Amino acid sequence: MGGVKLYGSPMSTCTARVLLCLEEVGAEYELVPVSTLTGEQKSPAHLARNPFGQIPALEDGDLVLFESRAISKYVLRKYKESGTDLLKEGNLAESAMVEVWLEAESQQYNPAISPIVYQSLVIPKMRGGSPDQTIIDASLEKFKKVLEVYEARLSKSKYLAGDFFSLADLSHFPYTRYLMVTPYASVFESYPHVKAWWEDITSRPAFKKVSAGMLGS
Amino acid sequence: MGGVKLYGSPMSTCTARVLLCLEEVGAEYELVPVSTLTGEQKSPAHLARNPFGQIPALEDGDLVLFESRAISKYVLRKYKESGTDLLKEGNLAESAMVEVWLEAESQQYNPAISPIVYQSLVIPKMRGGSPDQTIIDASLEKFKKVLEVYEARLSKSKYLAGDFFSLADLSHFPYTRYLMVTPYASVFESYPHVKAWWEDITSRPAFKKVSAGMLGS
Ligand SMILES: N[C@@H](CCC(=O)N[C@@H](CS)C(=O)NCC(=O)O)C(=O)O
Ligand SMILES: N[C@@H](CCC(=O)N[C@@H](CS)C(=O)NCC(=O)O)C(=O)O
Repeated sequence: MGGVKLYGSPMSTCTARVLLCLEEVGAEYELVPVSTLTGEQKSPAHLARNPFGQIPALEDGDLVLFESRAISKYVLRKYKESGTDLLKEGNLAESAMVEVWLEAESQQYNPAISPIVYQSLVIPKMRGGSPDQTIIDASLEKFKKVLEVYEARLSKSKYLAGDFFSLADLSHFPYTRYLMVTPYASVFESYPHVKAWWEDITSRPAFKKVSAGMLGS
Repeated sequence: MGGVKLYGSPMSTCTARVLLCLEEVGAEYELVPVSTLTGEQKSPAHLARNPFGQIPALEDGDLVLFESRAISKYVLRKYKESGTDLLKEGNLAESAMVEVWLEAESQQYNPAISPIVYQSLVIPKMRGGSPDQTIIDASLEKFKKVLEVYEARLSKSKYLAGDFFSLADLSHFPYTRYLMVTPYASVFESYPHVKAWWEDITSRPAFKKVSAGMLGS
């Protein structure tokens, strides 16, 4: 009654991003399982929700949304009154910094970290294959350059967008959570401010709850 | 005086995205050239603006922003009163659809179209190399699947987010503009609603002006 429906799987990174937002604002929601293990994301029912055939998708009455970062913003805007303000849209400069570091996640951090997780976790554990070390090594090099930028940023402000926790920080959780159960978790040891930031955000109750539904926890 | 400074190059796709926003809202701005042809984006001066060493970056007094989609939103929010409202942030459902199709551009359309442009335009015209046809063919297949989704969407609403022009439409311009001067421009002929949408948006004065500063126009 009145709640939104999220279609996806709690172990998928993109679903986890939206789940975190729903938990942070204390929204009433139902998670309707759509499993990529059986290819259900390409079923006619799900294609009607997301024409690109991916999870997650969100239904709120007649409104149907896809793309995890777009859904996340909708959830945070809709439930702003009841929960934490993770977008800071009332402040032009603060909201700009949230957008900058959310884009940094999507355009810089994610392309570097996701092949490491895919090769060292998804392929061996879910596809029964062996990782391609060349891809891992190249992505690690790229990822370290990204982490250098984050280290510099986080030595100047407590969180990515400034001295306040925001969607920008939250959005980094799903892939980083999986990196932490690969042999490459130790890469964070060289970046003390990044490590402190990670420890800070993962101590939030919403993060503990969503993390429990992910793989290898 | 009072204007913002955009650092970048008018021929770069990411700079063009922000230029379109500045033109659409009629903002006062100065374009400060930073050329990727000479590697200037990795200079200490530019790294202070964008630690990832890329163009564009925007300066508004003490505020320094990077990532073209984040900068675009800032510009559209800042000058909303004076110009067109391309974000619809006053309406929860409309703003959600703008975000959905802006993410579709960034996550689905862009990864498919950009290798086609890079291989068939950037490599031969700017790097003196020859295109890799295998990459072009694979990306074309991917791009056609994306265009099928767009065709279905644009046969139901005039613009991507609904019956109003928004940042979601605008953001597709830079790469599509370059596709149109490659041998693969004809791919649009099979998607009549996409083609009509493209003709509509490119007839806007802002688009004509920004297009004139790009390559091969
Ligand atoms: N950019 C999309 C990516 C969605 C995505 O890649 N979803 C994955 C699960 S994390 C999926 O559905 N994979 C199966 C497929 O693409 O067929 C988002 O952020 O929602
Ligand atoms: N996601 C970034 C991408 C920026 C980007 O790729 N910029 C290119 C020009 S379009 C660049 O600076 N390339 C040179 C380099 O990466 O060194 C944005 O949207 O601003």
